[in-house]
Amino acid sequence: MRTDPFAPEDLARDDFLGGAVRLWQPKKGYRAGADPVLLSATVPAVQGDAVLELGCGGGAALACLGARVPGIEATGVEMQPAYADLAQRNLDDNGISGTIHCADLMALPTAVKSRRFDHVLANPPYFEDLRAVAPTAPDRAVARSGALPLAKWVSVASKRLAPGGMATFIQRIDRLPELMSAFHDTLGALELWLIQPRTTRPARLFLLRGRKGARAAFISHPPLVLHRGEKHEKDGDSYTEAVSKVLRSAHPLPFPSQRRS
Amino acid sequence: MRTDPFAPEDLARDDFLGGAVRLWQPKKGYRAGADPVLLSATVPAVQGDAVLELGCGGGAALACLGARVPGIEATGVEMQPAYADLAQRNLDDNGISGTIHCADLMALPTAVKSRRFDHVLANPPYFEDLRAVAPTAPDRAVARSGALPLAKWVSVASKRLAPGGMATFIQRIDRLPELMSAFHDTLGALELWLIQPRTTRPARLFLLRGRKGARAAFISHPPLVLHRGEKHEKDGDSYTEAVSKVLRSAHPLPFPSQRRS
Repeated sequence: MRTDPFAPEDLARDDFLGGAVRLWQPKKGYRAGADPVLLSATVPAVQGDAVLELGCGGGAALACLGARVPGIEATGVEMQPAYADLAQRNLDDNGISGTIHCADLMALPTAVKSRRFDHVLANPPYFEDLRAVAPTAPDRAVARSGALPLAKWVSVASKRLAPGGMATFIQRIDRLPELMSAFHDTLGALELWLIQPRTTRPARLFLLRGRKGARAAFISHPPLVLHRGEKHEKDGDSYTEAVSKVLRSAHPLPFPSQRRS
Repeated sequence: MRTDPFAPEDLARDDFLGGAVRLWQPKKGYRAGADPVLLSATVPAVQGDAVLELGCGGGAALACLGARVPGIEATGVEMQPAYADLAQRNLDDNGISGTIHCADLMALPTAVKSRRFDHVLANPPYFEDLRAVAPTAPDRAVARSGALPLAKWVSVASKRLAPGGMATFIQRIDRLPELMSAFHDTLGALELWLIQPRTTRPARLFLLRGRKGARAAFISHPPLVLHRGEKHEKDGDSYTEAVSKVLRSAHPLPFPSQRRS
């Protein structure tokens, strides 16, 4: 658990979305990669929507969403005080209207519990990744102790959604069965979007979304492919066009249309 | 429920696997398509393996598997007497050693309950498809009354598996959340293989397999694509090469190797 605020010298400011967003991030510890950026790009929020992110970390997904969709009302919940502070600063410094609450998901503050949201998003921690990135950092305690089952994340998300509201999660592929079970028990109109590093590689990540109270049939879209080519090549940027446009030019990444063949 | 045996004039004999298997099928009612053929092609059974199919219908999957892998010991369970009779005849007439039992999955005969199997496969009925194919046939009663939850199919499959044995199911995409929840609760080392009609189309079917007592992480393979091209073209056979080799030449269709990128 990271409680002490980050010192100024521990932080660096990085460009996201081709510079449309600039985020303070710890030089050591959890740093946002492409995942929260992709997550935020898929959320079909519109001006005026109330958007809640559970476990928002340093606020990358909310800040990217706020930069792409002006006029959303952003709310974040983050249990680590240092990251909650950072997320608030990142919203403020990017001119995005929003409030970050430092709280455990299982004990939300009244300001959050008393409301319903049009969108809830989450990128629950990938425990192995946290260990790999910060083997000695205080963040690791969260990885050790904070293995909140994904069913709890989904339950909290569902309770906070307005009727018809949408939950969108991004997660590592190995937890797809667990997360899909939880979505299936709680939400409707589920849509799965696998994320493959390359056309020929197994999925490493996935996006899963569902709507509160909806009943439409489950859909599995053709996978999102991150990189061109069949294998890694060292020189240059290999992102596929759609992904590059998200990461470099703040484009949206809508889920594919739902027509069945 | 189809109880009366099919009359000879109600049956036609169709080639499968390019003629390696010839199956009696009712001219009206449930006729096997590509699904049981693909299912059987993915099962990595070897000579001497005991293989059980739950809800084997007219025996297409077992007969195709027996034709591709000589020396398996095939067992089928089918609740509709007319189809159970047909399945036994299809095994016998193709020279495949095996026994079909007419029984409800929830009341297996002792000959099945007293044994363990290396492989269990299932292609549980697609209710909408049954209605579409046989709107007035007696089979429809099964569709109406026989909506056995997929969790029951998986529970029976798991109980009948030897330690380390593998269950492989094929099913319509809309039931992926339900089936994956059941596999996740019961089996390990799950592998998902989505089946898309074309590269750009959402999955319509999926294969899901798991092993009894295994603990390896979930894997989602790049989708199997059935047809070449981005849209339907009327002239000729558009199957992709791997699928065509299965349907026309009795090739196996092994799940992709499990390397992670």
